[in-house]
Amino acid sequence: MTRTTSVALVQMQCTQSKEENVSAALDRIAEAAAQGAQIVCLQELFATPYPCQREDHSRFAEAEPIPGPTSEALGRAAREHQVVVVGSLFERRAAGLYHNTAVVFDADGSLCGRYRKMHIPDDPLFYEKFYFTPGDLGFRSFATRFGQIGVCVCWDQWFPEAARLTALAGAEILFYPTAIGWLAEEKATYGASQHAAWETMMRSHAIANGIFVAAPNRTGHEGELEFWGASFICDPYGTVTARAEHAGDQILQADCDLDLIDTARTHWPFLRDRRIDAYGGLSQRMLDEQH
Amino acid sequence: MTRTTSVALVQMQCTQSKEENVSAALDRIAEAAAQGAQIVCLQELFATPYPCQREDHSRFAEAEPIPGPTSEALGRAAREHQVVVVGSLFERRAAGLYHNTAVVFDADGSLCGRYRKMHIPDDPLFYEKFYFTPGDLGFRSFATRFGQIGVCVCWDQWFPEAARLTALAGAEILFYPTAIGWLAEEKATYGASQHAAWETMMRSHAIANGIFVAAPNRTGHEGELEFWGASFICDPYGTVTARAEHAGDQILQADCDLDLIDTARTHWPFLRDRRIDAYGGLSQRMLDEQH
Repeated sequence: MTRTTSVALVQMQCTQSKEENVSAALDRIAEAAAQGAQIVCLQELFATPYPCQREDHSRFAEAEPIPGPTSEALGRAAREHQVVVVGSLFERRAAGLYHNTAVVFDADGSLCGRYRKMHIPDDPLFYEKFYFTPGDLGFRSFATRFGQIGVCVCWDQWFPEAARLTALAGAEILFYPTAIGWLAEEKATYGASQHAAWETMMRSHAIANGIFVAAPNRTGHEGELEFWGASFICDPYGTVTARAEHAGDQILQADCDLDLIDTARTHWPFLRDRRIDAYGGLSQRMLDEQH
Repeated sequence: MTRTTSVALVQMQCTQSKEENVSAALDRIAEAAAQGAQIVCLQELFATPYPCQREDHSRFAEAEPIPGPTSEALGRAAREHQVVVVGSLFERRAAGLYHNTAVVFDADGSLCGRYRKMHIPDDPLFYEKFYFTPGDLGFRSFATRFGQIGVCVCWDQWFPEAARLTALAGAEILFYPTAIGWLAEEKATYGASQHAAWETMMRSHAIANGIFVAAPNRTGHEGELEFWGASFICDPYGTVTARAEHAGDQILQADCDLDLIDTARTHWPFLRDRRIDAYGGLSQRMLDEQH
């Protein structure tokens, strides 16, 4: 039995039409499967334009329960094409209670489970704290036909704690559905270093944990944001094995040899040497005496 | 008052003579200070050839108590040149009890404190678990005349927990005295990716924590090891502002504008959003049900 899994990431520009975006995503799942992909991951909140550029109560109408129409469509696509599907949805959990939620469907179409984004950003044009309650399910991994996978979402990617906990939960491939982009007034000065930092952080999670990392990112202009695409897949050494362009729709595909995880972790045995007796302070805000 | 600190890293090839190595290090502290450096950091175990290529009881004779002759020489150099000095010593704590220890001297020559390497490697030609008891002082920072600094040592650099805890303890600049190199039989195939992963990990610590990171590494051939030099300094965005060559002695100097820490952390407010309610699992070895 081979331990190589073919991963595909769907990078796409969204239109204003949810119907069009979902339809496009389903088409690309089919296309990726036809190209041999076994796990297909969509970008963050793929069904709509990024909803958080303003604090607008009307955007809550875009949310859906899970199961709901969009999640069920993803499940059907998984079953039809016999691929694992990782989606990202604006989840309506109850009146006034919403999450930024990833769903994992196994290749038979069954829902393996969901992950609710734990770290919620809030910055100019990314007003997510208005929309999303921080997740209450913790960090998890999901057994699928094609490997044990974990999902974190966008802002989570800046937190080594999230990657570590997902890896300790057993994830072999960690997906980051993402919607990150440049502000026009910052791009010339900071754009390159922002993108570099983003990729560097996730490559470091691969290295520190000896796992594969795969991040599909949104692309294209929406309002004042230019989503920077550059979806990528890297191996347990942090080596990028596939990277999309900044602009333009793309299905990015790469084979992940899951046996590399064992090789990487025995040659760089970080899990052996973690000082679990000395990490209690990680549950504190600050540790210096003044704060 | 300026918040810019000039940092210098001493990358050097060691000889078999401890006297020569210590003398060379003291000369370079003087030279760096003459060039305007305010904090000077030496590489890991700078006083001797790397002692851990074999398990050899005779090497324990190289260890010293702290205070001891070498640490006192560093303190005198700090006072004489009015610079902060970060050194790395093979510490004899008691008969049969040794540590891989960093010392921080303030610019008046006083000992701010010590850090005992918490994560101890053990791999072919790096038999450190034979020599060094894992540190029992935890992760710390030290107030110096030229900034609040933290020190971790070599293998610690692969552990995001160490960097996070040191940053939470208040460090603005995190130093990593290092002795990492290539094995001849691996260099052609893995050398470039090993070096890239090493630098990537430490750049990620700078980004995740919004701090400066500075890593002086040993250079030159010793026995079967080729230490890869490439000492570097990076800013809170993970941008490398200075990098030494792989081969050859070098004093690597860069100005660190400590006000950038505030800018980075308010624009990328990761510390604001850490889920300290959800990190308890970091004190576990594994979290998946099977293990």
